[in-house]
Amino acid sequence: MPERDWITFLTDYGTADGFVGICHGVMARIAPQARVLDLTHLVPPGDIGHGAEALRQAIAYLPEAVHLAVVDPGVGTSRRPVVLSAGGHLLVGPDNGLLVRAADEVGGVDSAHELSEPRYALGAVSHTFHGRDIFAPAAAHLATGLAPGELGPEVPVADLVRLPEPIARREGEEIHGEIVFADRFGNLQSSLPADLVAQSGLSVGTRLEVTAKGSTVTLPFVTTFADVAEGEPLAHVDSADRLALAVNRGSAATALDLGEGDRFTLRAR
Amino acid sequence: MPERDWITFLTDYGTADGFVGICHGVMARIAPQARVLDLTHLVPPGDIGHGAEALRQAIAYLPEAVHLAVVDPGVGTSRRPVVLSAGGHLLVGPDNGLLVRAADEVGGVDSAHELSEPRYALGAVSHTFHGRDIFAPAAAHLATGLAPGELGPEVPVADLVRLPEPIARREGEEIHGEIVFADRFGNLQSSLPADLVAQSGLSVGTRLEVTAKGSTVTLPFVTTFADVAEGEPLAHVDSADRLALAVNRGSAATALDLGEGDRFTLRAR
Amino acid sequence: MPERDWITFLTDYGTADGFVGICHGVMARIAPQARVLDLTHLVPPGDIGHGAEALRQAIAYLPEAVHLAVVDPGVGTSRRPVVLSAGGHLLVGPDNGLLVRAADEVGGVDSAHELSEPRYALGAVSHTFHGRDIFAPAAAHLATGLAPGELGPEVPVADLVRLPEPIARREGEEIHGEIVFADRFGNLQSSLPADLVAQSGLSVGTRLEVTAKGSTVTLPFVTTFADVAEGEPLAHVDSADRLALAVNRGSAATALDLGEGDRFTLRAR
Repeated sequence: MPERDWITFLTDYGTADGFVGICHGVMARIAPQARVLDLTHLVPPGDIGHGAEALRQAIAYLPEAVHLAVVDPGVGTSRRPVVLSAGGHLLVGPDNGLLVRAADEVGGVDSAHELSEPRYALGAVSHTFHGRDIFAPAAAHLATGLAPGELGPEVPVADLVRLPEPIARREGEEIHGEIVFADRFGNLQSSLPADLVAQSGLSVGTRLEVTAKGSTVTLPFVTTFADVAEGEPLAHVDSADRLALAVNRGSAATALDLGEGDRFTLRAR
Repeated sequence: MPERDWITFLTDYGTADGFVGICHGVMARIAPQARVLDLTHLVPPGDIGHGAEALRQAIAYLPEAVHLAVVDPGVGTSRRPVVLSAGGHLLVGPDNGLLVRAADEVGGVDSAHELSEPRYALGAVSHTFHGRDIFAPAAAHLATGLAPGELGPEVPVADLVRLPEPIARREGEEIHGEIVFADRFGNLQSSLPADLVAQSGLSVGTRLEVTAKGSTVTLPFVTTFADVAEGEPLAHVDSADRLALAVNRGSAATALDLGEGDRFTLRAR
Repeated sequence: MPERDWITFLTDYGTADGFVGICHGVMARIAPQARVLDLTHLVPPGDIGHGAEALRQAIAYLPEAVHLAVVDPGVGTSRRPVVLSAGGHLLVGPDNGLLVRAADEVGGVDSAHELSEPRYALGAVSHTFHGRDIFAPAAAHLATGLAPGELGPEVPVADLVRLPEPIARREGEEIHGEIVFADRFGNLQSSLPADLVAQSGLSVGTRLEVTAKGSTVTLPFVTTFADVAEGEPLAHVDSADRLALAVNRGSAATALDLGEGDRFTLRAR
């Protein structure tokens, strides 16, 4: 395999503890030529779905790389550490659904291998920090050109753990969705792809009725924030091609009292 | 133009969402040789003045680079995306006042160009994430050696948006200023340059009276924190050559109940 | 001295202010070939012990590097800026105990030098930002191959400031310890090394009684989180070979109401 110039890195480790820096150190020792691109380390603790979605929405914009991702509430259980090959990318992490959505985004999993070969792990593997002891070393060895098959036996693609997809379905005149991300600005990205919304006959100019947590609000479907007055709510298709709720120069999360995982129903008014 | 080794990067995107990592990815694909130096991504959301000041105070310590800065509450409106050339530096971001102060710090804007050439943007430009679609690609192309003039037509320097400067003026025996930064330690940097303070006859040894939000405190003008007892307030000239309020091994923000944007009046007691 | 490829960087500067980015800029200008590996910048403000422990637990996993660490509540006092040579590593920072534990971890301090040679500091050294003006320049010059002795006179190793070690001692049937780190997940790492615990006759399978802040809890000593039911507390040997308290898929910090610095007594039940 060719050397890889880039390792991208996503975790729920936070940036206050030494975990991320230690993993960087491990990779620097094994693959000093590789450059590490931090995606985020602030995935909510243990939130595999959030991590999976963040990686899926990022991968198309990243170089062909080794993508190291660790959100691993099952560390120390029998869940498998794996590497997935997908469209020229390699994805390293726990087999708990974290990686597969991103792999699908770049054409699907071509092959998967378990990370079980002890010579590519750090000496005495701990029970609680596989990022340091298994995943970062594997990512770094792959970046030096090691073939995934050297790390352990092949895993049938059908055996990989997959997360349920977020709710996104049409029922008669209603669309059911959920909030996937609430970002720093209070924008609420939904699970609804732009094409599902379009197929349902909703488009820029439609007025929408959104029902969630027992309340209903109506808001205009517009092109961008500035199409409504400051402080007013709106729906638009965001930069990930999803329907999103926002407030022009304000926070939809606050104004609508909605957050990640909240479900809603949408209809034309 | 020569290649640039460095791109510096400042935003209000936060580090929890994938925005910063995605922009890194976009730059890595276009300009893999460039190294990205993150200044901060925790500018308060939409606070252009804070971002402008952070960039101004940093630029003298940075390599001659492409400086990518995005604090852009007007994304999706008609505000212009621009690149400024200033003293060997290139500054890329929205034309909303974010970049000009830093350019002035390194000798002033030599020329400005709009970022309008579609071939240097990402395919379908979104309405809400110009960091990814316009600014990061432009910064990366500039780092590969592209001339600013290739990105779009020249903009007259006089047409660039400038923010009002923070208040800093002498009136008789009083100096009027405002708090520009409250840092992690609770130190309060003011808008008052050391030379304005000196010209007003205030110097180390003077006792100062600071009036803000209806209260007045007196504190000594000293050289450094340790010149007063632990827990005591002080004024000093900080590392950016500004008058600053602090508490030795404590927080002036808490002790004086002041924060960014608060105005005050200063006089010798 | 040979060039160093890596500078690691740990501070209590936080990531919201421009301090970290400015230090990166200073190093990039002096040692453009060096790569900077950020360990963390979220050491609690002024908490030298926390920083010292974070560096000690990381260093074995880092490349042989210049390690720049700044947690410096005494900036502007007479505390010395120093560089320590230890087992192929160079450690740069204030002589306040921050660096010595990490040096001991890689074999002990071979030699120490003060950073006093003005030509390797930035022009006019400020009284409050020695990270920018003294430490980052020194680290960068060392990375270019400068010998530590060029930076200033040798300091006797016995004169270096050392912090008291965290409490970790056996008294009869009890072990006295303290909480050293509460991580993002609420895991509580103690000051007790695994071998002290083992010598005290405690091992996996033992049931432990932990008394702290007037309350006593009993919990099993197990191998890893998943050895108890979800939501249940446990003790285990963590990835730094310390006894740690945790809750399977929960937060021990919350469940046990304990945090950094809290003392406890441990005994077999």
